[in-house]
Amino acid sequence: MTSVDATAVVAAAPAVVLVSGGLDSATCLAIARAEGFRCHALSFRYGQRHLAELEAAGRVAAQLGAFEHRIMDVDLAAFGGSALTDPALAVPQDGVSSQAIPITYVPARNTVFLAFALAWAEVLGAHDIFIGVNAVDYSGYPDCRPEFIAAFEAMANLATREGVDGRERLRIRAPLLDSSKADIVRRGAALGVDFGATVSCYQADASGAACGRCDACRLRKAGFAAAGQPDPTRYR
Amino acid sequence: MTSVDATAVVAAAPAVVLVSGGLDSATCLAIARAEGFRCHALSFRYGQRHLAELEAAGRVAAQLGAFEHRIMDVDLAAFGGSALTDPALAVPQDGVSSQAIPITYVPARNTVFLAFALAWAEVLGAHDIFIGVNAVDYSGYPDCRPEFIAAFEAMANLATREGVDGRERLRIRAPLLDSSKADIVRRGAALGVDFGATVSCYQADASGAACGRCDACRLRKAGFAAAGQPDPTRYR
Repeated sequence: MTSVDATAVVAAAPAVVLVSGGLDSATCLAIARAEGFRCHALSFRYGQRHLAELEAAGRVAAQLGAFEHRIMDVDLAAFGGSALTDPALAVPQDGVSSQAIPITYVPARNTVFLAFALAWAEVLGAHDIFIGVNAVDYSGYPDCRPEFIAAFEAMANLATREGVDGRERLRIRAPLLDSSKADIVRRGAALGVDFGATVSCYQADASGAACGRCDACRLRKAGFAAAGQPDPTRYR
Repeated sequence: MTSVDATAVVAAAPAVVLVSGGLDSATCLAIARAEGFRCHALSFRYGQRHLAELEAAGRVAAQLGAFEHRIMDVDLAAFGGSALTDPALAVPQDGVSSQAIPITYVPARNTVFLAFALAWAEVLGAHDIFIGVNAVDYSGYPDCRPEFIAAFEAMANLATREGVDGRERLRIRAPLLDSSKADIVRRGAALGVDFGATVSCYQADASGAACGRCDACRLRKAGFAAAGQPDPTRYR
């Protein structure tokens, strides 16, 4: 990013941006910054196997000029039910599933993440929450679909002071919802995202090196190829 | 409660029940039990001042025959903005507010709590989530209104596997939504709720003794009086 004028940033409208450390949320943060928002980046330590993504989230937030970055502790692993939080369940490596919801789905994860973003937005007085979900080149999770995002926005506007006061509406912004992975790569690259700083792999090692075989790696790799962009991912 | 047949309880349909330790959620749990559900009680350590309510939640869950009781750690105090989580903000003691949303409102609290309940329900295969919100004798919180509950239910059915599979719908059950506090007291008493085990006060002391002056105490006290029931609350 170009240099930041501190006074202008403080005066800018606040937005909460969910940042996972992956390619999509990094591009989403770059879009929010390009729109002029003062970005409050939010990540979660939710019991995921791949903590390297949280380090990536910190790098991404700093590189892209987030105003602050918070990591919330949320023990979704206590409920189990996903290969991303349960060491007893293996991450599939045999290709992106077509129809069924895969075992890497974490029950209600985006609902929980957006609920916290909503709480923070209400305290900040922010009317915009950015989330980098995508319903084209994705793993088929129910909480990445446009109808879910629209329903969450409707609920959020009834859940908060805004909903009672009837002032400016709260918006759930999902600017990548209808983009292909290749489009996301092109858009992020144009906005100066350093994809080498991001980690998408479901089972990255402690250094952030990717397996190259899980759904997330396959989708990412195909995205760089289709965009005609060099793939800066470190594979192990 | 009467004695529990362990085999029947395991075979019963599961439900997640939010239990705060107060009068309303205790009655709500008693209703869920009376309907025959295997009740998975869920409470939160969310940065509230009054931890005595969590001890009350444990007593209530045990007395009313919950199958299990979990307490999740959720740091809503990190965002601030409420007298219930911020020691710098005083709990009002001069009567129940009429119009404005009071300072005891915790931003997006019920959204966050229901999001976790949804995650657990999905893992358990539960189709019912009980919450003891009430929109009659209440503090005017936006996330206690019927339109919020309906919107959360609509969102929940798009957020989860159920929403994709189109199987049985998930229901947010708020059986006390339209009840007066007096009706809740009568209904709980009829179902054997020991109200002396519950704590409603916004600033209960470590022993659970109530202040008698905050909104929650005033509403509760008036409820017992209107129901013609003895008030077992320990005031300090």
